[in-house]
Amino acid sequence: MIKHALNVTREADFAQWYQTVIAEADLAEESGVRGCMVIRPWGYGIWERIQRLLDDRIKATGHENCYFPLFIPLSYFEKEADHVEGFAKEMAVVTHHRLKTDANGKLVVDPDAKLEEPLVVRPTSETVIGAAMSRWVQSWRDLPVLINQWANVVRWEMRTRMFLRTSEFLWQEGHTAHATVEEAREETMKMLEVYRDFAETCLAMPVVAGEKPENERFPGAVSTYSIEAMMQDGKALQAGTSHFLGTTFSQAQDIKFQNSAGQQELAQTTSWGVSTRMIGGVIMVHGDDDGLRVPPIVAPWQIVIVPMLRDQPEDAAIVDYCRSLQQELAKLSAFGEPVRALLDLKAAKAATKRWGWVKKGAPIVIEVGGRDVAGGNVSVIQRDRLYREDGKLDSQVMPRGDLVLEAAAMLESVQQTLYLEARERMESNIRRDVTDFAGLVEVFDEGNRYPGWVEVNWARPTGAELDAVVERLKVLKLTVRNVPSDAAPAEGACLFTGKPAVERILVARAY
Amino acid sequence: MIKHALNVTREADFAQWYQTVIAEADLAEESGVRGCMVIRPWGYGIWERIQRLLDDRIKATGHENCYFPLFIPLSYFEKEADHVEGFAKEMAVVTHHRLKTDANGKLVVDPDAKLEEPLVVRPTSETVIGAAMSRWVQSWRDLPVLINQWANVVRWEMRTRMFLRTSEFLWQEGHTAHATVEEAREETMKMLEVYRDFAETCLAMPVVAGEKPENERFPGAVSTYSIEAMMQDGKALQAGTSHFLGTTFSQAQDIKFQNSAGQQELAQTTSWGVSTRMIGGVIMVHGDDDGLRVPPIVAPWQIVIVPMLRDQPEDAAIVDYCRSLQQELAKLSAFGEPVRALLDLKAAKAATKRWGWVKKGAPIVIEVGGRDVAGGNVSVIQRDRLYREDGKLDSQVMPRGDLVLEAAAMLESVQQTLYLEARERMESNIRRDVTDFAGLVEVFDEGNRYPGWVEVNWARPTGAELDAVVERLKVLKLTVRNVPSDAAPAEGACLFTGKPAVERILVARAY
Repeated sequence: MIKHALNVTREADFAQWYQTVIAEADLAEESGVRGCMVIRPWGYGIWERIQRLLDDRIKATGHENCYFPLFIPLSYFEKEADHVEGFAKEMAVVTHHRLKTDANGKLVVDPDAKLEEPLVVRPTSETVIGAAMSRWVQSWRDLPVLINQWANVVRWEMRTRMFLRTSEFLWQEGHTAHATVEEAREETMKMLEVYRDFAETCLAMPVVAGEKPENERFPGAVSTYSIEAMMQDGKALQAGTSHFLGTTFSQAQDIKFQNSAGQQELAQTTSWGVSTRMIGGVIMVHGDDDGLRVPPIVAPWQIVIVPMLRDQPEDAAIVDYCRSLQQELAKLSAFGEPVRALLDLKAAKAATKRWGWVKKGAPIVIEVGGRDVAGGNVSVIQRDRLYREDGKLDSQVMPRGDLVLEAAAMLESVQQTLYLEARERMESNIRRDVTDFAGLVEVFDEGNRYPGWVEVNWARPTGAELDAVVERLKVLKLTVRNVPSDAAPAEGACLFTGKPAVERILVARAY
Repeated sequence: MIKHALNVTREADFAQWYQTVIAEADLAEESGVRGCMVIRPWGYGIWERIQRLLDDRIKATGHENCYFPLFIPLSYFEKEADHVEGFAKEMAVVTHHRLKTDANGKLVVDPDAKLEEPLVVRPTSETVIGAAMSRWVQSWRDLPVLINQWANVVRWEMRTRMFLRTSEFLWQEGHTAHATVEEAREETMKMLEVYRDFAETCLAMPVVAGEKPENERFPGAVSTYSIEAMMQDGKALQAGTSHFLGTTFSQAQDIKFQNSAGQQELAQTTSWGVSTRMIGGVIMVHGDDDGLRVPPIVAPWQIVIVPMLRDQPEDAAIVDYCRSLQQELAKLSAFGEPVRALLDLKAAKAATKRWGWVKKGAPIVIEVGGRDVAGGNVSVIQRDRLYREDGKLDSQVMPRGDLVLEAAAMLESVQQTLYLEARERMESNIRRDVTDFAGLVEVFDEGNRYPGWVEVNWARPTGAELDAVVERLKVLKLTVRNVPSDAAPAEGACLFTGKPAVERILVARAY
């Protein structure tokens, strides 16, 4: 039996396993500030990779980055009733601008420094960006406006979980304004596709892209689309959203333009975002009982070289050998970029370092001892196949030259393996044969630990009828996720209302 | 006489000119939120270039990026008295976590949602990062800790000026912990040198690096060093700082380690940062009466191609010609990176676009009309030599092939010219011959508009003696900037105290 690196397995306690991976892989930690985490170098390094790769795609589709204020005056929210209804319950509010030392020498908020108008720490920036767009847009010639920002946002969450739901989180938010509905809808779908492709290509995380039902729409949106990924416990994680906002915000913020016929029109806007939540997805899709497995494309270090030093004179030769190997590897290219290879010279035992990198999920770990140097070899651990069939660690001795020749292909193979494993898992865990509510209850029975998702017929109920569906699902801890863009056409009756189905929808437990 | 692109010159009104460049170059604008600006794509693009280039240098010197919470509990500030004294007067404080609609239907702060402990929006992160370091550091083996974060910070400024002093600004803040004073001091100086080199190499902005006098130290620091740049009005801009903090924060936050002899010691810490203020420096060092001139290394677009279209059938051929030129230029390399070339196809008149890019300060603007296409030529404007001697725009027709051959060298020449101009201006405006206060008064006389800087003898006064010097200088609107690391040794008496001088110090008006 394999003795795994973590002290809890996914099988034994998935939630505890998730927290353990975050701790053992040095991804993040509780900060001591309510609901806020410290993102540590390995976790932030993954975020930097996500930023760089996604930013390239956002720019390649014609968007430019800007930066808007952290603070939004309270009155901005009053202009858009639905929007504030959706966010008002969970926002951090700045009311004062000074501290002072009181008569007892205690540091307190200075009551004389009350702001005339409270400032809300942005939960999202539609209102403040809409106000800017109203200044920028006068004529159809000023459209489209295609912008994005990378920023921190705050939503006052009562129950937080690192990466998945934190009071402060990091994200990108794209905001665009267009002259026509068609163009704005095209933009909404284009960015949904950017997210789908990014998640699958870079994060090796298969997703289902589709439209959210009415009750799951972004506050103020006409249509909301999402990508949904399946975690290893069968739950869904909404990993990115794209919204067609119609004229909701252009009306509230007065984004008007003169069309080519000389008439005033309201602009059609969109917004779309992904966040540090994606890292939670990477953990729950690719992690195993030995820690994280980072897809090589987003791994801060793709190959880590651990010299096995023993405080002996031969150590110097080992370090030299490793250093020249690191330089050789750094000249290689994988996925169209230079390979990121690290020589780990930290003061710690080689075995501790090896397992540290395994838990962090570095795709390839190379160990070099005196015997390897003498034989011109290296010992290679590939993170996607950690153990041999006999349960022993699969550390392969190979000629150093072979490793250099094969390293890029090995990285590509790890990326591919992670993707295919996750794809296979998702596809085999979506049931499409459930036709009545009793069947749904059966799938999500308590005894069935990882029930996965169910795709069912859907008549697109609205209003009270939809509310009733949502209530029935709530009892089973279920939610309607999205209507997959590539689902087969619906035939027959809606599982919930019995009315003729118009589409197929995914039902699942979710984060 | 040249008719310049801006409606105000540096000579006529430097402050107004500065605001005009920011507006006309589309760098930033007032946001409607007190003291906060919107950084527009061209301004943010410069910041992204600064981020990428400086981040590379920060990582190359062994630092890793992390992310710490935006909010700092009030109690964290109580632990470090000097520090809070320096910042307490100007911080945004979150006191509530919810809005609600009141009886009159008005959106208000929910009085029932008061936080138990107020949260300060970080003005800088020594306290919260110190708390994390105290968790991370136990043994000498855990040292050094070398981290950095890119973040927004808030200081409640009463009088704001875009890029130079805004309530919210963007920056990087490095924080390190070390086992010895020597090592921490070495780190402090290393990062000061990174900043100096970055400012001069990338921003083409010559600076004087040196130690700040006691009264200008960061709250809680043992020593503060800065780089100071000279603006075109002769004022100094502090463009970056590096602090040796000794044990001030390790004591307050309990960053202790067991040394190799088994004893408990406090860690020695440092911090260092540069901000979006640097963009203000770029404007005031390189701008001219036609707008901004961006040093090519940090220009979002280095070469902009403007097709001169006239709604004629031949337009298509012009666009094709421009597109293939753009592709050719993008394959070139300058400063070790691919050349950033843009084809500007926006719906506007060619002349409007040309002057738009001149005002933005794109290093090279290429215009292509039908005649250029026919002759296989391009018309080239190089931003550092905009006018011919006769005052006409210096647009040079050259064979397209020649441009491609010369483009990289032209960019390098613009970078060099901007640096040399600024270096020459700075050096010729530092006076070193003033030996008494009357001489100082004379230099900074009202009639002398751009008096530059004066380097004088300094006996390093402290306490009340230093206070008196600061007061005397205040009358002249002067401050002591720093003790240049490369100043000649001091000989003779301190200009202020008459005591034997120990070093030379810069005196200047400053932003």
